[in-house]
Amino acid sequence: MRLSTRNQLSGTVVDVTTGAVMATVKVRLDGGDQIVTASITREAVEELGLEAGRPATVLIKSTEVMLAVEDQALADG
Amino acid sequence: MRLSTRNQLSGTVVDVTTGAVMATVKVRLDGGDQIVTASITREAVEELGLEAGRPATVLIKSTEVMLAVEDQALADG
Amino acid sequence: MRLSTRNQLSGTVVDVTTGAVMATVKVRLDGGDQIVTASITREAVEELGLEAGRPATVLIKSTEVMLAVEDQALADG
Amino acid sequence: MRLSTRNQLSGTVVDVTTGAVMATVKVRLDGGDQIVTASITREAVEELGLEAGRPATVLIKSTEVMLAVEDQALADG
Amino acid sequence: MRLSTRNQLSGTVVDVTTGAVMATVKVRLDGGDQIVTASITREAVEELGLEAGRPATVLIKSTEVMLAVEDQALADG
Amino acid sequence: MRLSTRNQLSGTVVDVTTGAVMATVKVRLDGGDQIVTASITREAVEELGLEAGRPATVLIKSTEVMLAVEDQALADG
Repeated sequence: MRLSTRNQLSGTVVDVTTGAVMATVKVRLDGGDQIVTASITREAVEELGLEAGRPATVLIKSTEVMLAVEDQALADG
Repeated sequence: MRLSTRNQLSGTVVDVTTGAVMATVKVRLDGGDQIVTASITREAVEELGLEAGRPATVLIKSTEVMLAVEDQALADG
Repeated sequence: MRLSTRNQLSGTVVDVTTGAVMATVKVRLDGGDQIVTASITREAVEELGLEAGRPATVLIKSTEVMLAVEDQALADG
Repeated sequence: MRLSTRNQLSGTVVDVTTGAVMATVKVRLDGGDQIVTASITREAVEELGLEAGRPATVLIKSTEVMLAVEDQALADG
Repeated sequence: MRLSTRNQLSGTVVDVTTGAVMATVKVRLDGGDQIVTASITREAVEELGLEAGRPATVLIKSTEVMLAVEDQALADG
Repeated sequence: MRLSTRNQLSGTVVDVTTGAVMATVKVRLDGGDQIVTASITREAVEELGLEAGRPATVLIKSTEVMLAVEDQALADG
């Protein structure tokens, strides 16, 4: 299956916290120390068997991505 | 300013493509080769002075992040 | 690949309109006459070879789905 | 009231699960067997009186819709 | 029609800019000077007849809303 | 830090409700009576020290904003 989703970042699950209907899953991206947090349904966590140590791909639609720049960086431009 | 936004990943702009009202900006994440694509307004690109080579932080609300696992990985579980 | 994305609806592409950086793709859902419109990047349209007649699966994260009820339906409740 | 929201799919609520602040609502689309899951606030569920059996319209902004194609379908293209 | 969408803010359209498939619409909220920008499809702009001067309601799902606080405000806490 | 996020509306927190992993925060916008509800992670609420009375800025990406018009308003057009 190939996705229109522009952002597909590989990593490893490092933490899962579940509530009644929602859950947060933290994934460490490969090749760096950056962590991504996903808020998904508890149902999805169970269905995919997500738990610490499992490889997972982070998916983010490009229309959901924002950008920020430092004021300093802009001033230097 | 401190944000509720869980995901704040540092990187560098590598490409900007602009249309009439929208634009796509590609950012290489620090500490790896992974690229993130953002679809933002042309107005935002101009206001922030986004262009290749500029440091930028990628912002993604956790409710926008999905996860995928390989079928293989699951079968091994 | 298995996705956390709750909504995966099968259908067939019926129309593609492309702009400079964005595109709209219309998909008729199987088993009914309902049409779903997706606003995705032009890059994704080209990469996936999306065109009228091609089978495609519509993906929607559950946190993006809203609901509406008729006032009448509520009054009857 | 007329909405800019491109996707307005009619169906019937088949399941509601509530947590402390969030809830998931499953809706069967008319004219087919496809189910859509919505993650909305518990407050909205109560305010709209959502419960199994109630007709409801699923609303999804087009910028939230992704597409997937089978690798096979692409290879045939 | 009653919506699960938590945020329904009344205002007046002050500007519309259209591209090939997308458009940006600026709305001044009632009772203040704050402006909201919406990136919606060109199709929606035409279908709703959006133009400067027309009253419009801004709709935003609560899961799409982020918050920020000043560092100062936090330090005082 | 400057954000690509088009919508940055200032206000004051009036209510916080927390669940196991998610929370809803209500913010009254300055210069009016309009209330915005944000569904964010409990983690973010704690990290930012959000509580009633605290000034906060509401952030909304423009691609998340929908618009509605009254049928009447359209008929008059």
